[in-house]
Amino acid sequence: MSVLVVGSIGLDTVKTPLAEHADLLGGSASYAAVSASFFSGVNLVGIVGEDFPKSHVEFFDSRKIDLCGLQIVPGKTFRWSGEYHTDLNTRSTRSIELNVFEHFTPTLPPSYNSTQYVLLANIAPSLQSHVLDQMTQPRFVIADTMDLWINIAKPDLLALLKRVDMLILNDSEARQFTGETSLIKAGKVIRKLGPKYVAIKKGEHGCLLFGDGEFFTCGAYPLEDIHDPTGAGDTFAGGLAGYLASLNHTEITFKTLRKAVVYGTVLASYNVEAFSLERMRTLTPKDIEDRYEAIKAISHFEKLC
Amino acid sequence: MSVLVVGSIGLDTVKTPLAEHADLLGGSASYAAVSASFFSGVNLVGIVGEDFPKSHVEFFDSRKIDLCGLQIVPGKTFRWSGEYHTDLNTRSTRSIELNVFEHFTPTLPPSYNSTQYVLLANIAPSLQSHVLDQMTQPRFVIADTMDLWINIAKPDLLALLKRVDMLILNDSEARQFTGETSLIKAGKVIRKLGPKYVAIKKGEHGCLLFGDGEFFTCGAYPLEDIHDPTGAGDTFAGGLAGYLASLNHTEITFKTLRKAVVYGTVLASYNVEAFSLERMRTLTPKDIEDRYEAIKAISHFEKLC
Repeated sequence: MSVLVVGSIGLDTVKTPLAEHADLLGGSASYAAVSASFFSGVNLVGIVGEDFPKSHVEFFDSRKIDLCGLQIVPGKTFRWSGEYHTDLNTRSTRSIELNVFEHFTPTLPPSYNSTQYVLLANIAPSLQSHVLDQMTQPRFVIADTMDLWINIAKPDLLALLKRVDMLILNDSEARQFTGETSLIKAGKVIRKLGPKYVAIKKGEHGCLLFGDGEFFTCGAYPLEDIHDPTGAGDTFAGGLAGYLASLNHTEITFKTLRKAVVYGTVLASYNVEAFSLERMRTLTPKDIEDRYEAIKAISHFEKLC
Repeated sequence: MSVLVVGSIGLDTVKTPLAEHADLLGGSASYAAVSASFFSGVNLVGIVGEDFPKSHVEFFDSRKIDLCGLQIVPGKTFRWSGEYHTDLNTRSTRSIELNVFEHFTPTLPPSYNSTQYVLLANIAPSLQSHVLDQMTQPRFVIADTMDLWINIAKPDLLALLKRVDMLILNDSEARQFTGETSLIKAGKVIRKLGPKYVAIKKGEHGCLLFGDGEFFTCGAYPLEDIHDPTGAGDTFAGGLAGYLASLNHTEITFKTLRKAVVYGTVLASYNVEAFSLERMRTLTPKDIEDRYEAIKAISHFEKLC
């Protein structure tokens, strides 16, 4: 089974307190697609300019990501430049050049229309809806979003929510979206807007998953050093979606989603160990299994005796 | 087995966005002692004035808390007044009257000197050390602390740390104390200062426990409504210490401490459901078991297949 991943693909310049790197592979779809590729096939939908390095295309290809949906058009690739502050928990955007991304319309190759699993990575909710308009009965649709769309495109986001099975967003976004300070209330409020499941990402504090009367709390993997948090959320979403697609038509239950959240957590924890997607280049299935078991071990406590 | 609890006992006036109550039973030792009493005997060491309501003494007594170490002296009881802000995560102190607490010297009745488990609830680290000076070989010593002592009594705190088995503090205090923004680094740094174990409380995000090459992450119980966060940390510490004392000389391992952290989390989650210690008055052992199992259930995910 494959997962369709749509989102941004870009070239990032990232500055942390310790280092700065330019022209890195970035964008929500890049992180999500590569992360998902550790579990399942991936159909990638995105846009880049003619300046997009061939080596990045080759990297996607090496991950067996289907690139029929990758539009390579005249012009320059989307660029983002950001700087992380001392604690790496906050960042400032230094510049954004939309370039070819400005007029991106995610048009699906006919072969993608019937993809069963869909990850609408972070792009404008109207574009996320446009992708769903082209699809024939996907089994499970996951959408990611961000503060920008909550601020400037809330009606579009609300319309999208009625069409997705799961929304992923971070803690500050969940509070902003609902006006609730309690994340527990926020998760429940968002569920009432449409998605059957809501995952609230809390960075170093892990993730909360809400279902119908069901709840799961997953701690983060304890990393002493984080090198680049960029794309952690996209990598989380990609790992989660890829794992679900790998189950090959098994019914998706809350039990399944708990495991998917842990896999997302594992992938994200590896990704922040290096800039851009560098850590993904050497990551092995064994690494993933080892860290899954490690998260199991650090979360374990005995039953009542 | 009993646990010796020393700390403040006071009368609190607490304002939240929804309600305000005056002259409530409060203080670190009150919360910690009552919480511990659900698991083990408690020897309470503290000081109050002659105005301290008899009903509060009777409440301690009803919890089978030994009151030989409770000094009732001429003067007025310690008073604290605070106000919580909208999200209940931050608060301002409106007033403090130290009263009889100003010249408190925790003097142990001879019968307390050999208590095996010790919880040094939040008071000045010099007083916490003074308690240890009077004790003969306790098995396990836990200290709680706060930002005030990190700011004004760091040398005393550092001296104390060499004499305790476990330090409990919250996330912002751990960062402040160590200068590390990573809580994972902070926990490890504090362990090097003396305590074999460190518990970092993160409020709504749960708790991290650090041991020798060992780590445990415990999520918080998902509460939609918190009525009064006052004393949550003290209640956590009391439940943790009481559970350890209840094991009656079983060796304290990291496995044991994981369970103790969960019991502390359970007690704290109940305590914030009402003002002061009101929820503790009706709490039953069955309630505690149920919520322990609930935390187990919401943290659970399957092994790798």
